[in-house]
Order: sequence, then structure tokens, then C-alpha cells
Amino acid sequence: MVDSLGFTDVEMDDAFWSPRIETNRAVTIEYQYDQLEESGTLENFRRAAEGGSGEFSGMWFQDSDAYKWLEAASYVLATEDDPDLRERVDEVVDLVAAAQDDDGYLNTYFTLVEPDGRWTNLHMMHELYCAGHLVEAAVANHRATGGDSLLDVAMGFVDHIEAVFADEDFDGAPGHEELELALVELYRVTDEERYLDLAQYFVDVRGHDADRFRWEVEHYDRIAGYGEGKAIEDGPAGTFLDDEGEYDGSYAQAHAPFDDQEAVEGHSVRAMYLYAGVADLAMEREETEPLDVLDDLWHNMTERRMYVTGGIGPEAAHEGFTEDYDLRNEDAYAETCAAIGSVFWNQRMLERTGDAKYADLIERTLYNGFLAGVGLEGKEFFYENPLESSGDHHRKGWFTCACCPPNAARLFASLGGYLYGDDGDDLFVHQYVGSRVSTEVGGTAVDLDVETDLPWSGDVSLDVTASEGESFALRLRVPAWSEGTTVEVNGESVDAAVEDGYLALDREWTDDTVELTFEQTVQTVRAHPAVEADAGLVAVERGPLVYCLEATDNDRPLHQYVLPTDGEYEVDHREDLLGGVSVLSVEARVPDRSEWEGELYRPADETGQEDATVTAVPYFAWDNREPGPMRVWVRGEQQ
Amino acid sequence: MVDSLGFTDVEMDDAFWSPRIETNRAVTIEYQYDQLEESGTLENFRRAAEGGSGEFSGMWFQDSDAYKWLEAASYVLATEDDPDLRERVDEVVDLVAAAQDDDGYLNTYFTLVEPDGRWTNLHMMHELYCAGHLVEAAVANHRATGGDSLLDVAMGFVDHIEAVFADEDFDGAPGHEELELALVELYRVTDEERYLDLAQYFVDVRGHDADRFRWEVEHYDRIAGYGEGKAIEDGPAGTFLDDEGEYDGSYAQAHAPFDDQEAVEGHSVRAMYLYAGVADLAMEREETEPLDVLDDLWHNMTERRMYVTGGIGPEAAHEGFTEDYDLRNEDAYAETCAAIGSVFWNQRMLERTGDAKYADLIERTLYNGFLAGVGLEGKEFFYENPLESSGDHHRKGWFTCACCPPNAARLFASLGGYLYGDDGDDLFVHQYVGSRVSTEVGGTAVDLDVETDLPWSGDVSLDVTASEGESFALRLRVPAWSEGTTVEVNGESVDAAVEDGYLALDREWTDDTVELTFEQTVQTVRAHPAVEADAGLVAVERGPLVYCLEATDNDRPLHQYVLPTDGEYEVDHREDLLGGVSVLSVEARVPDRSEWEGELYRPADETGQEDATVTAVPYFAWDNREPGPMRVWVRGEQQ
Repeated sequence: MVDSLGFTDVEMDDAFWSPRIETNRAVTIEYQYDQLEESGTLENFRRAAEGGSGEFSGMWFQDSDAYKWLEAASYVLATEDDPDLRERVDEVVDLVAAAQDDDGYLNTYFTLVEPDGRWTNLHMMHELYCAGHLVEAAVANHRATGGDSLLDVAMGFVDHIEAVFADEDFDGAPGHEELELALVELYRVTDEERYLDLAQYFVDVRGHDADRFRWEVEHYDRIAGYGEGKAIEDGPAGTFLDDEGEYDGSYAQAHAPFDDQEAVEGHSVRAMYLYAGVADLAMEREETEPLDVLDDLWHNMTERRMYVTGGIGPEAAHEGFTEDYDLRNEDAYAETCAAIGSVFWNQRMLERTGDAKYADLIERTLYNGFLAGVGLEGKEFFYENPLESSGDHHRKGWFTCACCPPNAARLFASLGGYLYGDDGDDLFVHQYVGSRVSTEVGGTAVDLDVETDLPWSGDVSLDVTASEGESFALRLRVPAWSEGTTVEVNGESVDAAVEDGYLALDREWTDDTVELTFEQTVQTVRAHPAVEADAGLVAVERGPLVYCLEATDNDRPLHQYVLPTDGEYEVDHREDLLGGVSVLSVEARVPDRSEWEGELYRPADETGQEDATVTAVPYFAWDNREPGPMRVWVRGEQQ
Repeated sequence: MVDSLGFTDVEMDDAFWSPRIETNRAVTIEYQYDQLEESGTLENFRRAAEGGSGEFSGMWFQDSDAYKWLEAASYVLATEDDPDLRERVDEVVDLVAAAQDDDGYLNTYFTLVEPDGRWTNLHMMHELYCAGHLVEAAVANHRATGGDSLLDVAMGFVDHIEAVFADEDFDGAPGHEELELALVELYRVTDEERYLDLAQYFVDVRGHDADRFRWEVEHYDRIAGYGEGKAIEDGPAGTFLDDEGEYDGSYAQAHAPFDDQEAVEGHSVRAMYLYAGVADLAMEREETEPLDVLDDLWHNMTERRMYVTGGIGPEAAHEGFTEDYDLRNEDAYAETCAAIGSVFWNQRMLERTGDAKYADLIERTLYNGFLAGVGLEGKEFFYENPLESSGDHHRKGWFTCACCPPNAARLFASLGGYLYGDDGDDLFVHQYVGSRVSTEVGGTAVDLDVETDLPWSGDVSLDVTASEGESFALRLRVPAWSEGTTVEVNGESVDAAVEDGYLALDREWTDDTVELTFEQTVQTVRAHPAVEADAGLVAVERGPLVYCLEATDNDRPLHQYVLPTDGEYEVDHREDLLGGVSVLSVEARVPDRSEWEGELYRPADETGQEDATVTAVPYFAWDNREPGPMRVWVRGEQQ
């Protein structure tokens, strides 16, 4: 077990991430509060508190937007007090509390619209999903403020849920996983084993033959979310049907018992939250078998079903996974929430195993698939993160289904929690982000001060101050992208073993400086030959960043460029551009257009190419300037 | 003017085409009659004849299926009498005649369903389109049988139409062009100038500011085809709206007066029929200006908006043209009817100009974009003709909108009419198809007997027998694909000038043999750099044929092959395959898969390729074996 150091123990001071985190704090959190008001999300709580009925705004799971915002805002408060924000958070907490029914039940959609429909449509109506986000918000709020009011609300609702699912004739799991991992968090602040038991129950009941989802699909005419005469396809259960109209549980990972699952399937956010919850449970219960299943799933995902950006889930129709190697680019769904979910899951795998492969994937996802999800100004968001655009895909201020924006806000606000780990003996540095952390490692008080220009250079400097001078290992991840790594301690080059992807510097630390250099070269990569969408194409990476071409930087239509695979890329850091980014440029080849007067097809051996400079910018920064086409995968020189 | 020799003057005897034409005669015509019965098309005429109302089967323009079938069957009867077919044709003619209203009006949809809605929805309800097909069928039937009964019906309906549109306050054109060219045909059998006048009126009224289509869109709630409370998007006028919901006439080529049109726009079948009609009118009236407009449109189409198969119209939503260079492959619509329409138009351009470029395009379209539309067994048809398939696009026995099958039947049955031309002095050979023709050229009786193995070899032998020994030129098209042409007359090599793409052999003909050799090499071609869909790809051609890869012939997924652009292609004629085709094979390059164990992305410079043989079959023959992926455009070696 490599416990993560909490984000409240980490003081961020990073040239790359801190401005984004500050934008999140100063702009996004307030902006999203306004959106909660404008979208009617808070009004739904008010109406429920006032005993209203009938009128309801937005999606039936919209309560969760408020909960995720509460969680994000609580994280902000935990790092830096802000009286105005505190007041606003308290006000929303009061609203939520007031909307709770006397029996502990809390879901404004059901209270206002379908009071008789509770628990009849687990797979799509999201009562348990919303409960999970309430619990996460409550735990965050409790930790940030010490207050119990939201925690009491959450525990009251969980009591209610426990009672409902205690009925032996009523087996059911959350259609959208989330409560599982939340219950483990609740256990962590309360030490109440029954929360683990309930989470375990939800994991175990899923995907068995007689599951509740199948019953719901078969009786869709009497469950919540359906009006009279509605066809099954027209209601929220339609996603549970396969092409033949038969029940198919894979959408919610209910196609098989968890232990028998071998591939990441269905709705990708659901899948990530389930795996995170299972990993949490396994951690708390010190079980290894679920970890083996999770590792198989991880291999399936990372070797067959993941974009080079760390994004996952190509298909819009069910927001999820399809088949091995289906990694279409322009139509890529790659939901921002799914990238966030992947970070959650991988962090738990990392904590359990200390294997750097999980930290590598977290890094890839944070810098690319996740970060693209939020515009530089902090007020616009991608729901889908395609790897190619003809120019018509843009961030939006809010969404009918607004799951992604507050999800991103909570990750930004807690990013410090992904940097460091402690296995009881050694101190792990998972991610290199400028920050200071004070902690205790095996009884030794340690201050660590990390400075770096990542992702723009591969140099990292770590100042270590240990009070006692006792020995412990500093375990420093060697990023998978490093083309060559050098380590100096106090100016002296050292040789250090790499274990599970971490350089182990085991010594008596007093007041020392470690200088790491991870060689960053521009790499062109190809996708597996089975990936049809990327056939003949290459992607350009440098360090943890995936790059892309945007039309605004390039003269030719993007499909005309052929990139060299061993070209001399020029790296130009431009402080004036996109908040400060390193731009790549290289001589590429393009068709010689002078040959093409008035002909649509010509013999291939009579067509030629010429040189043209092509410019690439980091993928995370795309669509922050003039709208236009974008491509991550670009035609590449052949082998 | 290069008048085409009629198909009744041409006796087909071709190894490639005759079996297809025979399948059309012996299988398709009867099969399609059964489909007319099954789809309720004939029943609609019976119901109308019996004064029924209300009940109607199928599409509102379904009468046209019967008319196109009548035209095709009449062409068959014109070349070879068949008492059973004659009886069946007479029976359908009687049915049609019986369904005509006393005032000459004839459209079973309106008679049965919306008797009060006549002429209120010209743009979509197709009364004039159906009238056009009635006229074409009537002319064909008259020419084939000498009988007048269908001609009388058609002329009665045209009289009615003439009266309706004589109203000065009622300006309107066919929403789906077709009647224009049909009226010219009617003029040709009747010599009545008023039919040309009416056709000219329909051409001239189109696309002017105050056109009827705009009125119809603005008053959609009171026109045929709309139910009470129907939104405009839900009815047939929706296609006339642009993205902003404003009227946009381009769907029916009504965005501008014809003379001002510069690009092929809108529904591609409509466009082709309009251009054919305009060319017909210009021919009969000896006007050259419309030809200039048509030539501009032809250049726009062939240089920017046409598939390598001759197919046109990439977009399914409006079955038509989009923008320059939008030539998407898997989603290509490329309707079979549009390819047929292109043949019609190009034949008229050829007749007017004697320029081989039109004959070249007819050849490309016939062998590829058209021929793929009909399965080898003659009972299955493509509506769309994509240039790539992931394996789920297949021919069908019939369609709700069944325009294509009988359209193909009438082209097969009249194919002999596309081979030869006569400009009064010389005899033109446009297409090399084994056949015999007896005609008179400038007063000289000539028998021509053509033998060839095209498309499999480029050798053509022509026996010329002229009764008088007078001199005239035999004008022999040099196909655009010929890589080298040799001509021998009576075994002696001759040098002959090429004029407008035709070798002119001007001599006294008595009993002579001409041997032509058109060098056929395998060519890989590229598309114009602006065609994004084909970037980095090549298509393989040999002679007039475009080839494709089908999964069933190849071990690797098709996207993995990289074709050489100067490879040594092996040509293997396989009589046992697909009715007898020449198969191409070549050493291509594919990814070395052994390098890819458990990785999804790898550095490009660590990936390699290996050799693999790839096999291509003619595009027209695809989807006649095991279903599977297909590609015309395949990754090509770089320049």
C-alpha cells in the first residue's frame, strides 16, 4: 500500500498547473455556481424543500451537479479559506438538507415528479448515483470544514438505502456506479464497517442472472422514467437493449459478475467508477483477487481500448466502450468524465501496487485527455474530446447533462493529492509538479520542495530536508516517456536502481538536493496495426504531452501534411501563446499542387510532393483560438 | 451533331455485356414485375381505375416504378419479341390507361389520397416527374410495338399539364426534373413543337425569384403531402430548407436561373435529368449557349465532385452534391440512378459535340458506378454505391423508394444505343462492345462487326463491309485509359490523326478489317490533394475498370495494405470467379505485427513493415460473395 498524501498536505507552486488551479478556484467555481442556479439545479432543491411537486428542471440526476460542485468547493475551502465561498457552500448544504425527506430519502426528481417511483428504475434513474455524489460531497465538506451537517444528511440517506436493499427479495445495484467508492470514503471518516458491507453488496449483486436490471427492462412499463404508452426505446432503458432488442447488461457492467469480467465494457464513466470502487474495497479488505481482475481490465483498456490522450470510450450512443481497437478519431466520444474516472481508478491501483505504470497513465490522462476538457479561461468545457475535428467541435459553457464541468472542478481542486505517496517506509514522488510537502516518513519528518518546468523541460529539482537524518528511500518515478534519465544528489551523479518504475534513492537525508533530468525528445508514435482509424498515421508526443495540428497554425489543409518519423523538430517556447506553451515545428511533405490543374484523378507516379513546415501545439490547448480543423493523428512517413 | 444509332439497329454479341443484358431480359424484367405487384404499385393503378379512394401503397411517386418498368420491357420487346412479356406489358398499359382521369390527369397517389391537392406541391409530390416517366414509357412502347394506346394516355396527360401551366398566375417547374427530356422525346415521335415549348418553359421558369417552390415552402400547411399540424421539417418540403430553416432551391437546381448555374448542386438525379433535358432542347433548337453552361457544369462535376467510379452525390440526406472535393468513401451515397442520369446527360453532350471526353466518362460510369448497382444474378440492387464498406452494405431485392432497379433495367435493355454515332458523314465508334450494326453513312450502306475482349484486354477487331466502296471516316474513340494505341487496317499498321479523342480512319471501305490495340496497364491513381477522404490513398484501375479490395480475397484487414505505385501487378483471368473476371495481385507492404505484443502505441521508428500479396477484383463485382469489408481507395506508397 502506497497511501497518497492528501492534497491538503501539499502546497502547489507550479508554473504549469498552479495557474489552472487558480483559474478553477477564482473563476470556475463561481461560474459553476451561477450555472447551478441558471439550470434550475438549486431551484429543484428549493422546490423539494418547500414540498412542491410536478415542476422540475433539467435531467433527473441533476442533483449530482450540485453535489460535485459542493465537493469541489469544499476542496477549495480545505486549501484556502474564503468566507464568501464558505457562505455559499453552507447555503447549498442547507438547501440540500432541507430537501431531504423525513425518511432520509433524498432525490429532488423523485420527490417532485415521481414520488411513487422510487427504486423502480435503478439502472437509469440514478438515485444511487446521486447518493454517491452526496456522500462524496459530504465527506469532502466534513474534511474541509469539520462540520457534520452534510455528513448527517448523507448518512441519513445511506441508512435509508441500507434498509431498502436489506429486503431479501430486492436485489439491485446502482445503474451508474459511484456509490460504491463513496461508501468506502464514508467508511474512512466514520469507521463504520456496514458502509463497506453495503458497497460490497452492490459490487457482488451486479451481473448475476436474476439481476434487477433485467427485471426492470422486462417491466419497463411500470418503472420510473416511462410515461404511458412509451416504447422501451424511447425511455432511459433503451440503452440496455442490444441490436436485437434483448436485455444487455454491459452498458452498466452487468453482463457478468465482476470477477468474470475480462474487458472494459459499456458506459465508460460507469466502468471507471466501478473499478475505482472495487479497488477501494479490495484495499480496505486487503483482498488481492479483485486486483487481479482489475489488472486484466486495465490491460484490456490500455492495450486495446484507449486513445493516445488517455481518453476512453469512442461511442456516443452509449457513451462508452465498443470493441478492441475501435479508436475512431473525429467521432471519438472520450468523455471528460471518463478521463477523470480513469485517473480515479488508476490512482487507486497505484496506491495498491506502487507500480509506476498507473502513475504514467495518470500523467498521460491529466495532461491530455482530461486537461483538454476545460478551456483556458475556465468557463468552457468539452464533454467529448475527439482527436480530430473538421472545425465544428467547440467547448460550451454548460450542458443539458452537465456532469463534466463540476467533475473537472473537483479534480483541479484536489490535484495535489495525486503527487506523493508513502508506503510506511519510503516517500514516493508519482508526479512531478512544483510543490512543497511536509510529511513524516517512517517516523522521520520530511520537507520536500519540488521545482520543475515540466511539461516543457524534463528537469526536476527536489530539495529534501529531513529532521532526524534517518534513512529512507525517496522513490522517484521515471516517466515512461523519458528517453534517458540522469540523477544527481548534491551535485554528484548517482546510479540508482529502478524498481517498479521508480528510482530508489535510499540514503540518510538531511538537507539535500536531487537533480533529475528526464530526456524529452519529440516522438512520433504509431498505433497498433489493428487500429483502422490510425492506419498510416502518426501522433507527435513530447514528454507527457500529446501534440496536435490546428488549422490556424498551418497553411495547408491538415490532411495534406506527411510528418517525418525521424525529423528534426524545432521546439519553441512561446510565453505569449495559449498561456505559454512549447510549439513544435518540422519540415513535412505536402502534395505539389502545381501538378493538379483541372484534374480530379491522376496517375500516382506522376504526382509529387514538396516541403512545408508544419506546426503543432499541445492537444490540451486546442480550440482556444480561431475555430478550425484539428488533428492529433497525422499522415506519417512510411517505414 | 453525332446522332446515336438506336439500340434496335445494334445486335449485341459481347462476352462481357451480353450475359448481363440477357440476365436483365430473362431474370430482372420478370422479377421486377413481381415486385411491382408485391409493392402494391400495380394495385394502386387498379384501385384508381375502380374509383377507389384512401387506400394507397408505398411512396407517392410509385407510379414511376411501373413506367420505368414499362419502358425497360418495351426496349426488350423492341429487340426480341416475347409473347408472354408482350401480354404482360399490354396488361400494364391497360391498367395505366384505366387509371387515367377523364380530364387526362394521371397520378394514382393524388387520385386515391389527395384528389384536391393536385399541383399544390410541385417540388416534392412528383406529379410532373411521374408524367415524364409515363411519357418516356409511352414513347418506348410506341417505338417497340407501333401501338398508340400508352402514347395516347401520355399525350392526354401532357395536354392536361399544358392547360394547367398555361395559367399566367401559375408558374412552376417539376420539383424532380424528368418531364423536360421526356417532352423532347415526345416531340421526336410526334413532331409537335408545343412539347418543346412546354419543356423550354419548365427549364426557363426554374430558379427565378418568384418561383413556385418558394411559395410552396412558405405555404406548406396548405399543400399536398402535409397533414394537419405537421411541421415543415416533417413533410417532404423539409429538404428545401437550409440550415437556418430558410428556403433553399438548390435541392432542385432552383437556386438560380439555369443560365446562371456554375456548379452541380442539390439532388444529383434531378440535376442529371435537368442537364440531359437542357442538352436535348439545345440540340433540337440548335442553340449553343445552354451547351456552354452545361460544359461548365460538366467541368465542375468531373473536376471536383465525382467519384473515380463515375458515381456522384456523396450526401445521403438530400441524395446529392455537397461541396467541391467532398468525396467521402464509406458514406458515399453515389446513387445508382445518379450514375444512370450521368450516362444520359453525357450521351447527349457526346451527340452534340462529338468530343470523346463524354464517351470516356460514359465508359467509366457504365463499367463501375452503374454496373455495381446490379448484382450478378440480376435480382439484387444497390441504391447507394459507397467506395468503402466495413462489411454491412449489401444489395437488396427491392426498396421502399425503388427508383434504381427499373432504371438500371431500362439502361441494360437499351445499352446498344450508346455504342455508335453518325454525324452524316462519318461513323463513330464510342464504346467498344462486341456487336454488329448495319447502317448507312453518307449514303453508303455499311455493316460493322466489332469483336473485343474488353474490359479484359485492349484488343478490338472491326470488320467493315461497305456496299459502294465510297469513302467515309470511321472515327474510333481512343479510350482515355489507353497507354498506347496501335491501329492496323487489313494487317497493315497505319498512322491516323486523333481528333477530339477519335482516331479518324478516312478511306474507301469495301471489306476491311481494323485491328485496334489499346494498351491496358494497371494504373494506381491519386485523387486531387483537396480530397481529404483520399489523402495518402490510391485507387487501382486497369482499362475502364476500377478495382477494389475485398476482405474475402485478402488475409489482412484492408486498412493494413500499402500498395506500391510502380508495382508489378499480376493479371490473372479467372473464368470461374464472379462470372469471369481478371484479378489483380501485387506485393504490398503491411505492418510487421510481431513487433506489437501488448502495446497500443509505439515509437514510429521502432515499427516496420513486411511484404504481403494483395488481391483486387473489379469494383462492379463486389458484394457478390461472402460479406466483408471492401475498399476502392487503399493506402499507397508515398511519392
